[in-house]
Amino acid sequence: MITLITDFGLADPYVGIMKGVMLSIDPCAVIVDLTHAVDPQDIAGAAYAIDGAYRFFPEGTLHVVVVDPGVGSDRRILCVSVRGHLFLVPDNGVLTRVMASARPDAVFRVENKGFFRSPVSRTFHGRDIFAPVAGHINKGVPIHRLGREISVQEMHSLALPVPKISRDGQITGEVIRVDGFGNLITNIDNALIRKIRGCAGNREGGPDVCKDVCVTIGKRRIHGLADSYQQVSSGSLLAIIGSSGFVEISVNLGSAARLCNAGRGTAIQVSPG
Amino acid sequence: MITLITDFGLADPYVGIMKGVMLSIDPCAVIVDLTHAVDPQDIAGAAYAIDGAYRFFPEGTLHVVVVDPGVGSDRRILCVSVRGHLFLVPDNGVLTRVMASARPDAVFRVENKGFFRSPVSRTFHGRDIFAPVAGHINKGVPIHRLGREISVQEMHSLALPVPKISRDGQITGEVIRVDGFGNLITNIDNALIRKIRGCAGNREGGPDVCKDVCVTIGKRRIHGLADSYQQVSSGSLLAIIGSSGFVEISVNLGSAARLCNAGRGTAIQVSPG
Amino acid sequence: MITLITDFGLADPYVGIMKGVMLSIDPCAVIVDLTHAVDPQDIAGAAYAIDGAYRFFPEGTLHVVVVDPGVGSDRRILCVSVRGHLFLVPDNGVLTRVMASARPDAVFRVENKGFFRSPVSRTFHGRDIFAPVAGHINKGVPIHRLGREISVQEMHSLALPVPKISRDGQITGEVIRVDGFGNLITNIDNALIRKIRGCAGNREGGPDVCKDVCVTIGKRRIHGLADSYQQVSSGSLLAIIGSSGFVEISVNLGSAARLCNAGRGTAIQVSPG
Repeated sequence: MITLITDFGLADPYVGIMKGVMLSIDPCAVIVDLTHAVDPQDIAGAAYAIDGAYRFFPEGTLHVVVVDPGVGSDRRILCVSVRGHLFLVPDNGVLTRVMASARPDAVFRVENKGFFRSPVSRTFHGRDIFAPVAGHINKGVPIHRLGREISVQEMHSLALPVPKISRDGQITGEVIRVDGFGNLITNIDNALIRKIRGCAGNREGGPDVCKDVCVTIGKRRIHGLADSYQQVSSGSLLAIIGSSGFVEISVNLGSAARLCNAGRGTAIQVSPG
Repeated sequence: MITLITDFGLADPYVGIMKGVMLSIDPCAVIVDLTHAVDPQDIAGAAYAIDGAYRFFPEGTLHVVVVDPGVGSDRRILCVSVRGHLFLVPDNGVLTRVMASARPDAVFRVENKGFFRSPVSRTFHGRDIFAPVAGHINKGVPIHRLGREISVQEMHSLALPVPKISRDGQITGEVIRVDGFGNLITNIDNALIRKIRGCAGNREGGPDVCKDVCVTIGKRRIHGLADSYQQVSSGSLLAIIGSSGFVEISVNLGSAARLCNAGRGTAIQVSPG
Repeated sequence: MITLITDFGLADPYVGIMKGVMLSIDPCAVIVDLTHAVDPQDIAGAAYAIDGAYRFFPEGTLHVVVVDPGVGSDRRILCVSVRGHLFLVPDNGVLTRVMASARPDAVFRVENKGFFRSPVSRTFHGRDIFAPVAGHINKGVPIHRLGREISVQEMHSLALPVPKISRDGQITGEVIRVDGFGNLITNIDNALIRKIRGCAGNREGGPDVCKDVCVTIGKRRIHGLADSYQQVSSGSLLAIIGSSGFVEISVNLGSAARLCNAGRGTAIQVSPG
């Protein structure tokens, strides 16, 4: 199985062309689109997207990420094995989030031209390198045949925003993504909240959550983490541990992004309730 | 085969994640996207979409609809068998239109946690309940194993707008959907028109249509139902029985929504011509 | 394998319905979306899209293009065999670009109603003719069974803009497409540039490109063709031979469409450098 993340959009036939190349090599490949709506050249956005999605696929899945502002330069292309998943990516930090929670087992450069289309264009390595290499890997080519092994330390990584805890036990993080519902997804997770609260939470029937906190965005304060959207009235603001384990700010039957006039980068505070 | 309708959009990886969960359970599942552009929480919109689409799939297809403003509350999830098709839906009325023309054979609650992901989040039952249950059903789990059977009467339904016929034989309906071409799709069908006209139409080579009517939208009057878009000049308004059997108002090579400044809910009259 | 290009968009379930019809006939069909974002009724846009994409699929692929403003009229539907690929299209010129570089081996009318849905609607031949015929072809029906053979000369073609060379060796072409990154794709290819330059280029490691030219768009002049986006600083304009072999005007890490305030139809000059 192969998943795809790109910044190509779906209006142009670029994604379909990549699939044509993959299926020409491995006609049995099952290809799943994760998203093609990453902002152009937004490596950090892609880093969050792949980290939030890859673990819901079976082991052995090959995840291809083509958000690649360095296409045509001498930036490396890598094939990385992490916890039974394979990632085919430009070496630009797009795996920074994945590797924050799991160390790669092996990292290979992708340099064996025998697996590329020929000639290779300067502007569409998605079609000429990523797609054919993905087809070959999915068909069974072992990744050590792609090129030289390198160490994890040699990989590029991104300096992504990290939440901070102040002396008085307040977490300051930020919105890292706004989804289609207008939910504000932050970089503050449950483990961090437990640090400032020290509570063990309830292990039954759901994730282990400390709810007794105060969440601040701009001038708005939200008291406590909700169990579900319906816990507040229609149109009201709430904070909740979202499906990926991070604090999300939402509006029941509405858009928190609109209500709070907030977006990626907006600061969020969580303090003991 | 599995079809999907959600209000998730395609910019976020949510749909792809659901596919990952389904394919982890049933790697042979064929999954077809119907639409992910239902307006957030627009149950009526989803009710029209699934009714307009399901009959074009083979019997035995499982249709999954995740437009679910009640996620995380105690609203029920149902698996409904209708005319050889299966539907996996929140119990919020999203099958109202499907059931207007076909009575379910069986309705089961989806409550057997053995088929869910664990733990189940409060905000993404698409991933944690709908997707794994769909994978299990597609792999062969009989639906009576999902939970208790309930009666059709126990299902929630929506109060959708119904066209009315006045004493002098005029139908008043409304626009229920605007498509990407700007066609205005109404809730007035051919059977209703035949009621006010009493004509039998022509059974050869096409649907049985009464064309001798007058269609009014705002201040504009359209005389007669057209046979094809080309029957009027470029940029002109026409009314036609659309591909789903309902009156549609269109512009040849243009957008009726723009020309008439109309949208969902705009009133439409059909009267004897 | 079947590819799809339409102007249906992805918000409506039309594309999913076509897939349902195809899979009802051939449950093993592998269907790849090329684009559904062709502007409504934009035959020329579809002509560029299919020409840019089809060659990246294996021989034997069936390419279905439903951009069909004449739906419901007596325009013909054709099945065309070109270089081992099959095309199922309305006879409206949508294959003009494909046929500019490759002559069809055979052209058949699609008129055998035994392969259509019944009844056929007046507004959705994608569902009622193209999809079922595609399913039957993919399942093995030989194309001569679809209808009478016609000659290539009988096919409609579009008058697409053709670049011109002036007496003093200047090429004037135009932008034919703007992609999601804001790249301006022109109709001027490398072979044409070689005509005005007479240079042989470098055959090693890439396409055979004459770089010593001057590209003009509006009041902006670009000296030389670049090898990669990174050859200019961030935000700067460049010209490059794009992945489909045509001159593209781009901005490194930005949008040329925005910077140049240009779009489809904008004139471009290439002159000896």
